[in-house]
Amino acid sequence: MAELVGNVLVGQSGGPTAVINASVAGIIAEALNHECIEEVYGALNGVLGILQEDLVDLASESQQQIRALKHTPGAALGTCRFKLKKPADFERVLEVFKAHNIRYFFYIGGNDSQDTADKISKLAQQQNYELRVIGVPKTIDNDLPSTDHCPGYGSVIKYIATTAREIACDSEAMGQGDLVSIIEVMGRSAGWIAAGAALAKRKDHPNDPPHLIYLPEVPFDQAKCLEDIKRVLKRERFCQIVVSEGLTDSDGNYVSADAATDAFGHAQLGGAGDFIKELVENNLPGVKARLAKPGLMQRAAAHAASKTDADEAFLAGQAAVKAAIRGETDKMVTLVRGDTDHYTCETGLTTLSDVANNVKKLPREWINEDGVSMNFQFLRYAQPLIQGEVAVPYDNGTPSFARLDKVRVDKTLAAYIA
Amino acid sequence: MAELVGNVLVGQSGGPTAVINASVAGIIAEALNHECIEEVYGALNGVLGILQEDLVDLASESQQQIRALKHTPGAALGTCRFKLKKPADFERVLEVFKAHNIRYFFYIGGNDSQDTADKISKLAQQQNYELRVIGVPKTIDNDLPSTDHCPGYGSVIKYIATTAREIACDSEAMGQGDLVSIIEVMGRSAGWIAAGAALAKRKDHPNDPPHLIYLPEVPFDQAKCLEDIKRVLKRERFCQIVVSEGLTDSDGNYVSADAATDAFGHAQLGGAGDFIKELVENNLPGVKARLAKPGLMQRAAAHAASKTDADEAFLAGQAAVKAAIRGETDKMVTLVRGDTDHYTCETGLTTLSDVANNVKKLPREWINEDGVSMNFQFLRYAQPLIQGEVAVPYDNGTPSFARLDKVRVDKTLAAYIA
Repeated sequence: MAELVGNVLVGQSGGPTAVINASVAGIIAEALNHECIEEVYGALNGVLGILQEDLVDLASESQQQIRALKHTPGAALGTCRFKLKKPADFERVLEVFKAHNIRYFFYIGGNDSQDTADKISKLAQQQNYELRVIGVPKTIDNDLPSTDHCPGYGSVIKYIATTAREIACDSEAMGQGDLVSIIEVMGRSAGWIAAGAALAKRKDHPNDPPHLIYLPEVPFDQAKCLEDIKRVLKRERFCQIVVSEGLTDSDGNYVSADAATDAFGHAQLGGAGDFIKELVENNLPGVKARLAKPGLMQRAAAHAASKTDADEAFLAGQAAVKAAIRGETDKMVTLVRGDTDHYTCETGLTTLSDVANNVKKLPREWINEDGVSMNFQFLRYAQPLIQGEVAVPYDNGTPSFARLDKVRVDKTLAAYIA
Repeated sequence: MAELVGNVLVGQSGGPTAVINASVAGIIAEALNHECIEEVYGALNGVLGILQEDLVDLASESQQQIRALKHTPGAALGTCRFKLKKPADFERVLEVFKAHNIRYFFYIGGNDSQDTADKISKLAQQQNYELRVIGVPKTIDNDLPSTDHCPGYGSVIKYIATTAREIACDSEAMGQGDLVSIIEVMGRSAGWIAAGAALAKRKDHPNDPPHLIYLPEVPFDQAKCLEDIKRVLKRERFCQIVVSEGLTDSDGNYVSADAATDAFGHAQLGGAGDFIKELVENNLPGVKARLAKPGLMQRAAAHAASKTDADEAFLAGQAAVKAAIRGETDKMVTLVRGDTDHYTCETGLTTLSDVANNVKKLPREWINEDGVSMNFQFLRYAQPLIQGEVAVPYDNGTPSFARLDKVRVDKTLAAYIA
């Protein structure tokens, strides 16, 4: 493979995670090792920044700041949910790449982002513009195919499991046997995050909280839910529920506002957690329900991130650069679990087009028969992903995060209206 | 002062905090130093446990477990919201105390709990039963008078400030200038907790998030709120709001369900955060609103507790025992801040009756003229309280908390029906 001399461009896309910046750090750190890489640029707000030629010079950032990216939440380069559609947009991307001699493009994101990367790569090939494109997986949703798990997932479930265990201490202390404590977590289409709350249970203590986990994979049934809760309240001092925001009924409708209107004759704003809270309060006399909705907290909780996850996110960034230098393109880095009992993780590659059009479901056989708890297969899968704690530096009592200088790369093209 | 030989009883009362167990640990650790103390008992679920003679032998717990209390959330002895009212209930308490030779009673709680402790003490005096009663302050609400601040407060605001800063990283990354991110925090009658979010701002960066803090101390005005938000969105990439659940309008009504019905013609469940989310979505076209409601998470977040707070909670427990041994009674331990620039904290004492009937308000002069931000006086007050991080041990990826054996003390009395 002939050495390809040129510049690197890194972009971030989709919802941030606690460790997406660790992948940027991995890319920058590895890029410094290769002389064929001349400049390392970042695109501000993903493809939006590429269209607008809003690029920053990452090589001019201090090493402290790049190191600090490993524990900084959000997306330090900015991100976007913009999806390239028009042929003119793709042409513009190539125009910007050519103007800045971008020969290596690393895009950190989920399905849509990998689809975008794939299309950019194919256009470059059509135009005989030598470009190596490697995707880096990122999503708290853990729904990318071909990779054992996704950077971002381990940290969100470590945080949710920690939170579930802490709230359990609080609820148990009240000791009145009439408290239902609900935590609504992210996950529009799959229950990966809610399932992760099961890690709050101690080994061989299946009755530990969370007592009930409601997943999008199992159609929600109000009557069964009430029976589930009554059963737990009979046995335990309180009932802890973790519910996925993407809960649906047997018709596939989200359990939320409209469903509540039908059931109780008044409109309800809010999601599945609010619904279950209402369900309890309206049907179980004397039982109190408390709801926690971490919302954006869960994907930004760098202070409680998994070291395994942050390390793998960094590793995935490094692997992307190594693969591109080797001559690979049109690939996404994958995480590959070793097949021994002792958890190990290496990186692999899959084709971008495979990722772009598939999602990985939470296996139905990892959910117990009762529909509200996870079995040992899930626990064996998820437990290694939350091991270790990231050492976040604190300054004056709060976590100290990276702030990039974002020195702009001079624009050379006319402005573009997307 | 003649030496009083007998047993100790410790109880916890009201809502748990991240550090209420540290006060229990302080009491037990100090009690071991004094030979006049024979047994150290805990009351399960506060006064409920006393009425039922549900006592546990704390001296039989392992030292590891007592040490682990310093980082364990919830209330390890159990707590309650039960308020003693009937004279017969107070008589029963004394009967239980006499049956178990309780001569030192330490009650960890807020206003109501200190009121209970005061009444128990007075009844003992009437009956010439020698008993020393010392209260230990505890509340995330920080509303106890006579003490500079309350154990529990530093940890909750450290967590909220950390969360606000992390969510800010996430929101800033989206970079679209049309995002309002709302965090609803606890605080029914005072804005102490919401105010603490201001600690997420870096020094000398008044425009840092959180951009708007809505407090119960400032009557809520919808039109002004919308103007506040528009002003921030014009200046910043997003608008972060922290709102106290106890927000009220100019008539003193809670900003929640009913208010929303008036404003938008449909019922709304949920509190002040939901209300502002709706307000934004209904009045600012194209602007998205996201809501995080940490709920019980915030008072249970031991994994992110303030070391200063945990140390002071432990110190307050120790001080209670020392004071009782010295012969003090009918007092509550207070935290007394030194008057130098370098933060120092010692303990003092106040009379229980002073605490029982007063609340400490967030000073109006600590809130800026704009009504939505805190000035340097608040920051100078609050900043020292969040310093340092508690080193929580992790086991297999989640925090490891104390679990007491709770060896029961034999009952000697007939059952009591409260």
